[in-house]
Amino acid sequence: MPHPLFDKHRALLDQAQAAITRRTHWSPYAENPRVYGETAMDEGQRAFEAYRDAQFYLDQPGVQGRGGEEVSPYGLALNLSYPCCNPDALIDVAKTAMPSWVRAGIEARTGVCLEILARLNAGSPEMAYALMHTTGQSLGLAFLTGGPQAQARGLEALAWAHREMTQIPEQAEWQRNVSQRLEKRFMVAPIGVSLIIGSATQPTWNAFPALFASLATGNPVIIKPHPTAILPLAIAVAVARLVLKEAGFDANLVTLLVGNPDGPLARDVALNQDIRLIDYAGAPDFGTWLLDAARQARLFVEIGGVNCVLVDSTYDYNALLKNLVLSLCLDSGQLRATPRVIFVSREGVQTPEGLISDGQFGMDLAYALGKFLEDPVRAVEVLGAIQSPATIARIRAACDMAEGVANILRYSSPLDHPKWPEAHVHSPLLIHATADQGRLFMEERFGPIAIVVSTANAAESLALAEATMREKGALNFLVHATRPHVQQLAEDVALREGVALSFNLTGTVLINQPAGFADFHASGANPAASCGMIDAAFVAKRFYFSQVQRHYLPPSSIDWVVDL
Amino acid sequence: MPHPLFDKHRALLDQAQAAITRRTHWSPYAENPRVYGETAMDEGQRAFEAYRDAQFYLDQPGVQGRGGEEVSPYGLALNLSYPCCNPDALIDVAKTAMPSWVRAGIEARTGVCLEILARLNAGSPEMAYALMHTTGQSLGLAFLTGGPQAQARGLEALAWAHREMTQIPEQAEWQRNVSQRLEKRFMVAPIGVSLIIGSATQPTWNAFPALFASLATGNPVIIKPHPTAILPLAIAVAVARLVLKEAGFDANLVTLLVGNPDGPLARDVALNQDIRLIDYAGAPDFGTWLLDAARQARLFVEIGGVNCVLVDSTYDYNALLKNLVLSLCLDSGQLRATPRVIFVSREGVQTPEGLISDGQFGMDLAYALGKFLEDPVRAVEVLGAIQSPATIARIRAACDMAEGVANILRYSSPLDHPKWPEAHVHSPLLIHATADQGRLFMEERFGPIAIVVSTANAAESLALAEATMREKGALNFLVHATRPHVQQLAEDVALREGVALSFNLTGTVLINQPAGFADFHASGANPAASCGMIDAAFVAKRFYFSQVQRHYLPPSSIDWVVDL
Repeated sequence: MPHPLFDKHRALLDQAQAAITRRTHWSPYAENPRVYGETAMDEGQRAFEAYRDAQFYLDQPGVQGRGGEEVSPYGLALNLSYPCCNPDALIDVAKTAMPSWVRAGIEARTGVCLEILARLNAGSPEMAYALMHTTGQSLGLAFLTGGPQAQARGLEALAWAHREMTQIPEQAEWQRNVSQRLEKRFMVAPIGVSLIIGSATQPTWNAFPALFASLATGNPVIIKPHPTAILPLAIAVAVARLVLKEAGFDANLVTLLVGNPDGPLARDVALNQDIRLIDYAGAPDFGTWLLDAARQARLFVEIGGVNCVLVDSTYDYNALLKNLVLSLCLDSGQLRATPRVIFVSREGVQTPEGLISDGQFGMDLAYALGKFLEDPVRAVEVLGAIQSPATIARIRAACDMAEGVANILRYSSPLDHPKWPEAHVHSPLLIHATADQGRLFMEERFGPIAIVVSTANAAESLALAEATMREKGALNFLVHATRPHVQQLAEDVALREGVALSFNLTGTVLINQPAGFADFHASGANPAASCGMIDAAFVAKRFYFSQVQRHYLPPSSIDWVVDL
Repeated sequence: MPHPLFDKHRALLDQAQAAITRRTHWSPYAENPRVYGETAMDEGQRAFEAYRDAQFYLDQPGVQGRGGEEVSPYGLALNLSYPCCNPDALIDVAKTAMPSWVRAGIEARTGVCLEILARLNAGSPEMAYALMHTTGQSLGLAFLTGGPQAQARGLEALAWAHREMTQIPEQAEWQRNVSQRLEKRFMVAPIGVSLIIGSATQPTWNAFPALFASLATGNPVIIKPHPTAILPLAIAVAVARLVLKEAGFDANLVTLLVGNPDGPLARDVALNQDIRLIDYAGAPDFGTWLLDAARQARLFVEIGGVNCVLVDSTYDYNALLKNLVLSLCLDSGQLRATPRVIFVSREGVQTPEGLISDGQFGMDLAYALGKFLEDPVRAVEVLGAIQSPATIARIRAACDMAEGVANILRYSSPLDHPKWPEAHVHSPLLIHATADQGRLFMEERFGPIAIVVSTANAAESLALAEATMREKGALNFLVHATRPHVQQLAEDVALREGVALSFNLTGTVLINQPAGFADFHASGANPAASCGMIDAAFVAKRFYFSQVQRHYLPPSSIDWVVDL
C-alpha cells in the first residue's frame, strides 16, 4: 500500500538502506547548526524558554494530575510540569490504536516515522536547549548528539526495520500439485506494547532507535522518561503524536508516561503483562533488575560496563595523550562508551622518541588534562555539566577510596563555567592504581573518573582488560599498539569478549562517539548490553510475519458462494 | 574467503535464498524415496539394522561410560549404546574449537553446513528407519518429515543465516574529513556454545534449523537428544563431525551429549554459564522451566499449545470431514501443530446441502474417522505408533475425565499393526464437550485426543478459541468458513493472538504439515513458542558483528613502523 509520506521521504530511506550496508561515513541530518538557518539557534532558545514556567501540553487520556521536577544542571529554574497519566489507561489506548496501525501497512508506518524524524530534525535547535538543561551536556554536544545524531540513529533503526519487514512478499501462490493450491498472505505483525525507559544523560540518542524500530514494526510505544530528563522526550512524543494525528492515525500510538517521582512507576509498568517490548539504557541496577524480573517482555537493555584502554606503543605519543584527554573529558564521562581504565605496562610505552615509563605516562596524561582545562571556554564545551548529584558524590567516593592506597594523579575540582555560575562543572579525577587493586578499577564509575593501572607487561594488561570486560561488560576497547602481536592478541580478546576494538585513535576520532550507519554500539555478547545496536536482531525481535492461507476455490464451488 | 564446499553448493544456496523471499512451493531435497535409488530403502534398512545390538561410535572426549535405552514403539529391540561424555568436557572442547571456526569466515562455515546437509540427505533412508523406531512415526512419514523436510528446514535456516550474515561488508573505509579516516573491519562473531535439546517425536525436524543456524553463525553446538530418540541425532552428529573433520575443522564443533537417563542432565547443562544459546521443542513443563531458569542463554523454545479449529460453514462438507480426520490421525496427534479442539455452533454448520447441527457434525466426524480406520494398512501409515507410554496414559486419563460429564463420540482402542504385532497403535479418542467445560478442552492433550466443543454461535466459538489460544498458546488456527464476516473476525483473532490462520483446508493440505520455505511455523507472539520459526530473528540472535577499526597511518609514521 503506497503512502504519500513514504513517497515524500523515500529517497532518504533508500540512502539510509544503502548506508547500513556500506558502513562508510554518512550523516543524513546536517550536523552544523548554521545549516538550520542564521537565526535557528536563537529561535530554538526562544522555543525552549516558552516551555519554562509552564504546563507542557499533551492531550493524553487517564490524566491523574501533573508532575515533573526537572532541575537544570546549569542552575536554570525550569518550573515545568507534565500530565501524569495512569499507565493502565495508556496501555489500553495503545492496544486500541494498534490494529489499524498494523493494517495500514509497512509503507504508511515507515512514511509516518520518516515524517516524525523530519519534524524532529527541524526542531533540533529547540531540542538542543532542552537536552542541555536536563542532561547537562554542553549546547554544542547536546545539539550534535541529541539532535542530528540521535535522529540518524532513529533513521538507522528504521532502515533496518524496513529492510527486515520487506524480505517477505505480501502474497504468494503456493502450489504443490493440482489439488494442493493455496493463496498465502503475509503481514508484519507487532509483538505488543513497547515501553521505552529513558536515560538521564542521553535521552534522545538512546530512545530514538527503539522508538522507530518499535513503531515502524507496528508496536505502540509508551515512553517513560527519566525524572530528571523529561522535556526532550516530551517534545519528541508531542511531535510524534502530531504527525500521527495529521496522517489520520491514533495519536495514542505514542504516549508519555510521567509519574509521581516517589512512586515505583517504572518497575510497576515494566512488569505489566501487556508490555511486550522494553528498551532501557541506563544504570546497571535497574537494568539488571529488568533482565531478571520482566519475563513477559523482550528486552533491549544497555547498562554499560568498564571500557578498557591499553597503552602499549604508539606512532605519536602526544596525539595519543590528546585523544585520551578528549575522550575522558567528553560530557564529563557521562557516556556509557567513555573509557574508564587505562592499562599501561611497567615495561613502558614504546614511542618514536623512546620508552616512556608507566609512571611518566600517568604524569603526562595528568599534565595533558591540565593543559586542556586551562582554557575554560573550550573546556566546558567538552565537559558540559554534571547531570546528577550522585555523580558528584561518586567522584568524592572514588577519591576517598583511592587516597592512601593509590596515587591521585589529578584531583577533581569544581570549575567555574564562564556563562552559568550555578553550573555543576567538575574536572576529571585521575587515579593511578596497581594491577592488584581490582576493587578500584573493576567497577564502572560513571562520571569524570578514570584510573590508570600499572601492570607487569602487555600480557598482563591484556589479561586484566579481558577479565574486567568479561566480568563487568564493556562497549569498547581502545588499544594503542604498533606491535603486530599485541594487536593480534587484542583482537582475540575483543572477539572473545564481544567488545568493539579501536586501534591507535588520535585527533578528534573519539572512542565514545560511535558513528551512525557505521559502528555497532553494543554487541549483546557481554554484560554491557543484552543486544547489539543497531542490527537485524534489534528490529526483527519486534515483529513476526502473520500468515493467512486459503485454498483456492474449486470452480464447482463458485456459483454456490455467490448464492450465499 | 572463498571455500570449495561453498562453491560446490552455491547454486542450491542461491535457490534457497530466492525461495525464502518468494514463499512458493519448493522442495530442495527429493521427497520420493525412489529418487534415492531403487534399492535405497533396503540399503537404509540394512544400515539401520547394523546399529542394533551394537555400540554407536563417536570419538568424543570426556567419555565416562556408555548409555542409551531406546525402545522401538514398534516393539523392535534396539539394544544400542552411546558414549556418555562429561558435559563440561564437551563445553571445553567446543570453546576451544570456536575461534578457528569463526575466523574461517562465512563461506567456509556455510559451505561445510551445506555439505553436511547433502550427506544427511543421501542418508535419508537410513534416517527414516532410525526415526521410525525411536519416534513411532510410520516409515513413510519418518522419511518425509524427518528426512528431506527436516533437511529443507536446516537449509532454510542456513539461507536466512547466510542472508543476515552477509548484509554487512567485511571492510569499510570511513572518512569524515582529512584527519578522521578509519579502516573498519566487521566479522560475524558467535554468541557462544549452543545447546540443542532434542524432541522425542520430531528430533531432526526440530533440531536441524537450530543446528545449522547456530553452526553457520560460528557457534559450536552440543546436541542433547531426548533419551527415547537418540539414534537420529547421533547419526546427524556423526555426519556433521565427519564433514567437519574432512574439511579440516575441529570435529568437536558438533557433539552429542547422552547421559545417565536418571540424572538431571538437561537441567544441569542448560544452566551452565558457558551455554549461551538453547533451542528446545517439546513438552511445556521443561520448556517453561527453561524460560524461567536459563537466564544466561538466548532461548528458542517451542512448547506447543491448544491449536483450535472453527467449523462455521463450508463449500464441501465431506472434504472438510476427510481433511480433519487426516489431520487428527497424522502421527497420532504427536505433532505440536495437530488440531486439538474443534468449535462448532449450535446454530449448525452451513453446507451446500443445508444446515448440519452441532450434534450431527460430531457424529459425522466420528463416523468419518471410523471409515478411515477401516483399512488398517492405510490407517497405520498415517497414525504410526505411539511414542511414549505417557501418551497412552493421557488417552486413558482424558477418557476417564470426560466420561459421565461429556459425550464420547468415539472411544480410543488399540489397533493391530499389520506388520508389527507389538506396535503401540491406538485409534484417536474423540470427545464432545460444551462451551463451559474449559477444563476439558483448554489444555494441550498431546496425542490422539480431540475435543469437539458446542457453542452458542460463531461469535462464542471465536471468543473461546481466542481465549484458549491466548492462555495456552497455539501454533495455528484452522477455520472453515465461507461467510466473509466470520473470516474477517477470524483474521482479527489470528492477528491478535499470533497464530497462523488457514481457511477451508481440504484434500491432503494438512494444517499440521507446515511447508518449508513458505510457512512460518511459530510466531513467538503467544505462549506456544518464544520465537518465530524460521525468520530473521531466529538466526540474527545467534551472532553479532564484531568490529575492529584503526586509523589510517599518517604518511610520516610509515618509516618508523618499518624500523620497529
